[in-house]
Amino acid sequence: MAEEAKKLAAYAAVDNHIQVQQVLLPSTNGPCVLSLSLLAERVRQEKLNIVCVPTSFQARQLILQHGLTLSDLDRHPELDVAIDGADEVDKDLTLIKGGGGCLTQEKIVAGCAKHFVVIADYRKDSKALGQQWKKGVPVEVIPMAHVPVSRTIAKRFGGEANLRMAVSKAGPVVTDNSNFILDWKFEHAQNWKEVNTAIKMIPGVVETGLFVGMAERAYFGMEDGSVQVRDPAVN
Amino acid sequence: MAEEAKKLAAYAAVDNHIQVQQVLLPSTNGPCVLSLSLLAERVRQEKLNIVCVPTSFQARQLILQHGLTLSDLDRHPELDVAIDGADEVDKDLTLIKGGGGCLTQEKIVAGCAKHFVVIADYRKDSKALGQQWKKGVPVEVIPMAHVPVSRTIAKRFGGEANLRMAVSKAGPVVTDNSNFILDWKFEHAQNWKEVNTAIKMIPGVVETGLFVGMAERAYFGMEDGSVQVRDPAVN
Repeated sequence: MAEEAKKLAAYAAVDNHIQVQQVLLPSTNGPCVLSLSLLAERVRQEKLNIVCVPTSFQARQLILQHGLTLSDLDRHPELDVAIDGADEVDKDLTLIKGGGGCLTQEKIVAGCAKHFVVIADYRKDSKALGQQWKKGVPVEVIPMAHVPVSRTIAKRFGGEANLRMAVSKAGPVVTDNSNFILDWKFEHAQNWKEVNTAIKMIPGVVETGLFVGMAERAYFGMEDGSVQVRDPAVN
Repeated sequence: MAEEAKKLAAYAAVDNHIQVQQVLLPSTNGPCVLSLSLLAERVRQEKLNIVCVPTSFQARQLILQHGLTLSDLDRHPELDVAIDGADEVDKDLTLIKGGGGCLTQEKIVAGCAKHFVVIADYRKDSKALGQQWKKGVPVEVIPMAHVPVSRTIAKRFGGEANLRMAVSKAGPVVTDNSNFILDWKFEHAQNWKEVNTAIKMIPGVVETGLFVGMAERAYFGMEDGSVQVRDPAVN
């Protein structure tokens, strides 16, 4: 069910947001893999002039596998559209991202896009952050700072921030930027804009997985086969 | 003259701020190298129980060479005193740091210290940032983001932010955190607290070399052999 729902959301986003323009195809969560193959199909059929900027190693591989044109932010620092998944999307389009550990690259690329669109299945749709996604807010940190940052977050905002451990290697997860990830399990709803700023300002924090005021629209693939759109400018 | 002045400032800081406590001995600009050898002498003579957390490769080597006790923020996330140099110190004790490229580690360690004391010679003393230090504010960035971050800084705050190039290798300087450095040459004085927050919030920025509201006292070694103290709580 969730797989079908992801596909619907990916279709809706690619249908509505891809013109003859640059675009980013970001991380490799389920719906983005789907949107990439849909995009490749449209590029072939409609001969679209589209350039793709990846946000992860895997996204880069997929762009190449699909024969799409690979670029980067040195060549294309301004993107027309960013399409990405999310671990959770609240009613204000505040997102938690970074389950896959690419939060920093995803935020960099989304920040370069004129339009940032989220695709997700119904399980990611949430009234308030934390209701659906139980693993907490990922925070990328400089390795030498993981202990003081973890302590500062817990002390100032409650809950606990734990070092994410790797599965296929010993010790902690190391990100594509050679950093560590803390997963902050918060205890209660917060003013996410303020908390995002406060956490990023802690020395040693590279980026947070809170995306506040960045997404302008979300497409949710629903269990009943419909697609729900959340866009404060429309509904 | 400047060498003698550095020594005076280092003496004053080590004399006044080292008790039988932990301490950080940070980066390897002139006065800190001096303060480290002074500290080592006091530790030997007075049998002080002091632990040192370095902020750079070179600081680590110096700690070991002097036979001081090396630690890190995993073991000592709370430090009693941080003593560090600065590229420029303004009348409010706002600092520019990062000429040596270790701004992120220096800010992490200073942020863990109960007291943060600056030592410098008279050439670093400035009424307003930019009057003495002409190389701009260093900003550490994730390599993939250096172009969009540079453009964003110039557009929002004026001036230009240029990639720092290496001398003993081809291409840009790579920091100890595997990142790049932009040197932001600003055109006019700013509200440094606001600008520091705004720059750090740009996705892809790891840290800025602006230290706002962190230092509590500065010792300046003067040309005439005196030491000037700047401490808003005292003078």
